[in-house]
Amino acid sequence: MKEFELIKHFFTEQAVKRKDVLLGIGDDCAVVSSTENQDIVVTTDTLVAGVHFPLGTSAKAIGHKAVAVNLSDIAAMGAKPSWISLAITLPEVNDEWLTEFCAGAFELCEYYNVQLIGGDTTQGPLSITITAQGLTPEGKYLSRSGAKSGDWLYATGELGDAALALQHHKKQLLLECEIAEQVQKKLDYPKPRVLAGQALREYASAAIDISDGMLADLGHICQASNVGANVVLDAIPMSDAMNKSQLFDDAINFALNGGDDYELLFTVSEDNKVGMETALSHAGVKISCIGQINASRTISTTLDNKAVPINGSGFQHFSSKTHTKK
Amino acid sequence: MKEFELIKHFFTEQAVKRKDVLLGIGDDCAVVSSTENQDIVVTTDTLVAGVHFPLGTSAKAIGHKAVAVNLSDIAAMGAKPSWISLAITLPEVNDEWLTEFCAGAFELCEYYNVQLIGGDTTQGPLSITITAQGLTPEGKYLSRSGAKSGDWLYATGELGDAALALQHHKKQLLLECEIAEQVQKKLDYPKPRVLAGQALREYASAAIDISDGMLADLGHICQASNVGANVVLDAIPMSDAMNKSQLFDDAINFALNGGDDYELLFTVSEDNKVGMETALSHAGVKISCIGQINASRTISTTLDNKAVPINGSGFQHFSSKTHTKK
Repeated sequence: MKEFELIKHFFTEQAVKRKDVLLGIGDDCAVVSSTENQDIVVTTDTLVAGVHFPLGTSAKAIGHKAVAVNLSDIAAMGAKPSWISLAITLPEVNDEWLTEFCAGAFELCEYYNVQLIGGDTTQGPLSITITAQGLTPEGKYLSRSGAKSGDWLYATGELGDAALALQHHKKQLLLECEIAEQVQKKLDYPKPRVLAGQALREYASAAIDISDGMLADLGHICQASNVGANVVLDAIPMSDAMNKSQLFDDAINFALNGGDDYELLFTVSEDNKVGMETALSHAGVKISCIGQINASRTISTTLDNKAVPINGSGFQHFSSKTHTKK
Repeated sequence: MKEFELIKHFFTEQAVKRKDVLLGIGDDCAVVSSTENQDIVVTTDTLVAGVHFPLGTSAKAIGHKAVAVNLSDIAAMGAKPSWISLAITLPEVNDEWLTEFCAGAFELCEYYNVQLIGGDTTQGPLSITITAQGLTPEGKYLSRSGAKSGDWLYATGELGDAALALQHHKKQLLLECEIAEQVQKKLDYPKPRVLAGQALREYASAAIDISDGMLADLGHICQASNVGANVVLDAIPMSDAMNKSQLFDDAINFALNGGDDYELLFTVSEDNKVGMETALSHAGVKISCIGQINASRTISTTLDNKAVPINGSGFQHFSSKTHTKK
């Protein structure tokens, strides 16, 4: 256990920089001050080695990703991330690994002024659980349940690269080195859309972060909002790496069903469209209008203005094999 | 993954009962409202199978303990627990196991009006990470760092039973069935001293919960407060089960160094002594004055008013073998 005591230094060395952190790591609890007229959003995500990241993923990428997936949830609520608690289970103490892990995790925290306020280190099979919190003006948060028929459907960034990288990693397809490197970065170092999320707070009617795959996460919005949607496949944003390396059918499949994108999927009313686009222009991320919400309570897809079917069970496996790379 | 979707029901079925939970489980984050003039305390603890509880521990006990150890940290801050997030990693989905686990966890939550506001379920080796939060009036929280020379040292409950049960479980000693059952309950179902912690908020100068063993945790108070302490061994509260089954030397060793007690260890000034004792009389737990803080910056122990040594390395292994059962 002595060794595990040493680990604490990795986490306690982070100086307390936020004024609202009254007591940092080192007591039975951390203490933070609540701010008048603000709500607090809370999320918890666990990453297990071999499940949420391939065995062999670099420690720095694991550290980054563990923080990023949680900040992505905060972003989807339109909130500003503030504090995280980190529970890490390690098979053994390895200074080099921990240094890299902390570098990955804390770089992101510092960038977004997020304070580590607690942690627990235990011995066991590698896994990381982070609880992240964020602040948002009272009553002003985004949820999955506000989408209305007629609202436009948008996504940030580009979709499918992380899933493509995972397939490459699993040797289920082969990519050129340069392309493999580009998509690997998307898998290992997802960018939580924190600024975009906050900018959306005043404009979006619903939002979610894309972690399960775009169609699945759109399904979550539709279910929570009691609506349906049509997705325009021609408009799905995909990277050059994807377009260069994959046939259109395969590319669209990655983009619709691949997980781990950590982009935001959100809906905006016609009235808020221009305001939203202006606000988002400062958030440093491209956005694409990829469809529209309707009252159908199902999800449909169109290509070249023609309906193309998604398979019967809903939106879990898209497998249109009738199109070729455009 | 379908199976793991099912698990969500175990956690989402918990109705939202607290008014300060604006959005419960089911979105990217939960949302809670912050209360004016209140601080928030936050703690995270992981329990790994085979490390924090013996393999073969009942699911109900694991559920109870996972919540209890976190509420114990909240209690040590003098705060009132409010919300928990639960991340559970399971090797496989087992309905019966989960039903029992939830019974153990939520019984305690309901008792203390604690709301589950988030969770993540993943597949992997069994481990549970809980982040618990609590509320305390602004600036009014207990910490490890306020003990002053002359303050009295107290402990709640009785010490050492959990460690005794663990030794029995490991077959390193043999207990009569009745005694084994009594101490096993202390190991499996620790009682977080939530009401006592809140009652102490106005009176104690420092507090900690006893998880590493009494002397080790006293060491944490002394280090944080820059003081020392003398512990009166005759006054250490021990159970009938302990007294009946162990020689005094062994019993005191369990009580001083055994972990997992989850009692509160706290210090009170002479001026606050009577007030504290009155306040604690309503908290449903016995308290014992077991020593006094001094300026020495070391920890000493006395028995029958005579100094008895604790071994050189400080307070990690007490091994006085000169006394016999009284």
